[in-house]
Amino acid sequence: MKDMLGREELITVEKALYLLFQYVPFKMPAVKKVSIEKAYNLVTSQDIISPENLPAFNRSTVDGFAVNAADTFGATESMPAYLNIVNEILMGEEPNFALKRGEVAKISTGGMLPSGADSVVMFEYTQYIDEKTLEVLKPVSPGENVIQAGEDAKKGEVIFKTGHRLRPQDIGALAGIGLKEVEVYEKPIVSIISTGDEIVPAGMPVKPGQVRDINTYTLSCLIEESGGIPLRKGIFKDNYELIYQVLKESIEESSMVIISGGSSVGAKDVTEKVINDIGTPGVLFHGVTLKPGKPTIGGIIDNVPVLGLPGHPGAVIICFNIFVKPLILELSGTVKEKTFVRNRIIKAKINRNISSSPGREEHIAVKLEEINGELCAVPLLAKSGIITTLTQADGIVIIPVFKTGIIKDEIVEVRLF
Amino acid sequence: MKDMLGREELITVEKALYLLFQYVPFKMPAVKKVSIEKAYNLVTSQDIISPENLPAFNRSTVDGFAVNAADTFGATESMPAYLNIVNEILMGEEPNFALKRGEVAKISTGGMLPSGADSVVMFEYTQYIDEKTLEVLKPVSPGENVIQAGEDAKKGEVIFKTGHRLRPQDIGALAGIGLKEVEVYEKPIVSIISTGDEIVPAGMPVKPGQVRDINTYTLSCLIEESGGIPLRKGIFKDNYELIYQVLKESIEESSMVIISGGSSVGAKDVTEKVINDIGTPGVLFHGVTLKPGKPTIGGIIDNVPVLGLPGHPGAVIICFNIFVKPLILELSGTVKEKTFVRNRIIKAKINRNISSSPGREEHIAVKLEEINGELCAVPLLAKSGIITTLTQADGIVIIPVFKTGIIKDEIVEVRLF
Repeated sequence: MKDMLGREELITVEKALYLLFQYVPFKMPAVKKVSIEKAYNLVTSQDIISPENLPAFNRSTVDGFAVNAADTFGATESMPAYLNIVNEILMGEEPNFALKRGEVAKISTGGMLPSGADSVVMFEYTQYIDEKTLEVLKPVSPGENVIQAGEDAKKGEVIFKTGHRLRPQDIGALAGIGLKEVEVYEKPIVSIISTGDEIVPAGMPVKPGQVRDINTYTLSCLIEESGGIPLRKGIFKDNYELIYQVLKESIEESSMVIISGGSSVGAKDVTEKVINDIGTPGVLFHGVTLKPGKPTIGGIIDNVPVLGLPGHPGAVIICFNIFVKPLILELSGTVKEKTFVRNRIIKAKINRNISSSPGREEHIAVKLEEINGELCAVPLLAKSGIITTLTQADGIVIIPVFKTGIIKDEIVEVRLF
Repeated sequence: MKDMLGREELITVEKALYLLFQYVPFKMPAVKKVSIEKAYNLVTSQDIISPENLPAFNRSTVDGFAVNAADTFGATESMPAYLNIVNEILMGEEPNFALKRGEVAKISTGGMLPSGADSVVMFEYTQYIDEKTLEVLKPVSPGENVIQAGEDAKKGEVIFKTGHRLRPQDIGALAGIGLKEVEVYEKPIVSIISTGDEIVPAGMPVKPGQVRDINTYTLSCLIEESGGIPLRKGIFKDNYELIYQVLKESIEESSMVIISGGSSVGAKDVTEKVINDIGTPGVLFHGVTLKPGKPTIGGIIDNVPVLGLPGHPGAVIICFNIFVKPLILELSGTVKEKTFVRNRIIKAKINRNISSSPGREEHIAVKLEEINGELCAVPLLAKSGIITTLTQADGIVIIPVFKTGIIKDEIVEVRLF
């Protein structure tokens, strides 16, 4: 986007995200049924309904004696209730007897209550008189120390809504209600197009003037970590025809495309032109008030988001977390999680002054260190283009767009990687 | 551990961890070489040394003109320096000329400086007089806007120490310095032994009195998430011979063993006896001042940690995060990361009073909700044994061992799942 004088017009990060998210729903991945063993970290594509009651029977939550609560009313240490021990309930078995008034049966945590029993007295509040007779020293109310059938999940109840990412406890719950399979979204495929006349594949020797492809590796890991599947399209010269061809192919094959930009002067213009030529609406913004990451390009082609990220490796992670990660979460089908994207934060004391120009949101890589017993954020200030800065960093500190810096000893929020 | 009166002696969480970690080094997994594409999230088992300088040549960090800084000394807008444009440096190519005094060459970000040039003047501070002549309006110092060869990483420099978990930016850096492979620890294998007479495999119909195996599923996901490999040993009756056999086998096959306890009264004693009978030192503690999770058993056999966790699914995640996760990180070979285990926290306002008995550390599952524009932690209070509570939770709030509760509107730290 250029203004009337031909200068690039910068927009804020918030505006840039707003422009991209206007085009929701994006082209979503397919849905599939998977066994619950393979569903961890995937996102439900329909409401999950419990096919049965959990638990299927009234269960004790303590070790003790199954009773009829009425038989314990008024019991105290000085005036115990005396009840007959008639049976012991074995774990995993249905009691083959009914409890009559005045009777108790020994039961373990998780055991099934016999009919006639409505509560369980804990061992701690009982005393054996003999093998057949029990003193109960404290009353229980009906239902006490019992999980009722269906109390955990009722047959027909929605236990996970559409758009829920399945966590460890959720997979356990699916096992508990007897589901073998669950319908989920496939992971979104994200194509990575690496451009730049100076870039050679990693693992190759470099000639003077060349550098290896770093960003494809970093981006692949970041995409995986965010729940996507990276698709490496390769390295391309800054040439209109080549970029056109690979972008067109990528739009068809994937849910999202990242063009990791070359550094040569004309590269950004090529990327912008190709995005506009392949489909609509094309480029939505080019240039954000962000450091590092100013030359970021955002566009949409046929409901597929296309991001042009700066080639500088130090900017890649920051731009990924701001622009790409929320898009991957959207394309994963998640609902609630998206609001937590920016929330993995801890507080620390900054250990030096940092200046920043107003008018851009500045992201500073920091290292966490314990200094005099306090958690401190130590800024890693480095020249643009240095790769190893981020390898020493634990997270980033953001200086908001209208702030001119951070004073030493200020408490800052560190967004952990 | 019983005291002289035969009662279980409870110890604090800190003491329990201290007892286990006394036996470091544990039996560590093997090391292997993997390609950098497969090294993401694995932990280095030796120092990683850069085989070459990064960058390999002096690189420009801006778009502009390569110069000899001395030629710009004293240049101002009113008294510019006039220099001869002799060449343009192409991306990815070695300049085949040397810059003489009084000369400049056009260069892009990432371009290689020609010999004779020691700095780069940004475009913004230049003006063309004609195709061959440039006005420079601001001086540069030697080295300005240039990354020197080896400035990012020097040949022979340690770029990752032993015990470093490789993150996305780290994999990028490995690609950058030209490494194809890296030596890492294999992921630790963690055996899961599920016990309980009432437990049937997930996916099977349940008879009255039976419940499906939930914990194996939850534990498998948690182990995976923490960087381990779950090994499901199956479901076993609470029988000394059976548990003895499978535990002995597991000690040989894996780096750690979890026994997910059955609920029947005798089960805990069986587990304790088996751990003591198989090897030394055997059981270190049985019973911690923790709710839920009081009956946790911890032991070591031949340098392999063995944890007996309560069967109650609600306790499993909490005990996992407290006891199992730090052990898995230790067994993964990580060094720094372990100090951050308890740090994924956010602050929220609690929306009701919660009481707690002093003398135990209580873990309350909470849901995060925005109430009147504030982030609130809503406690999910449920009976022990309810499975679905944790499926609704976003994290936990800890009431420390000597605190008697939390007052409504207090700001609490929520440890996110």
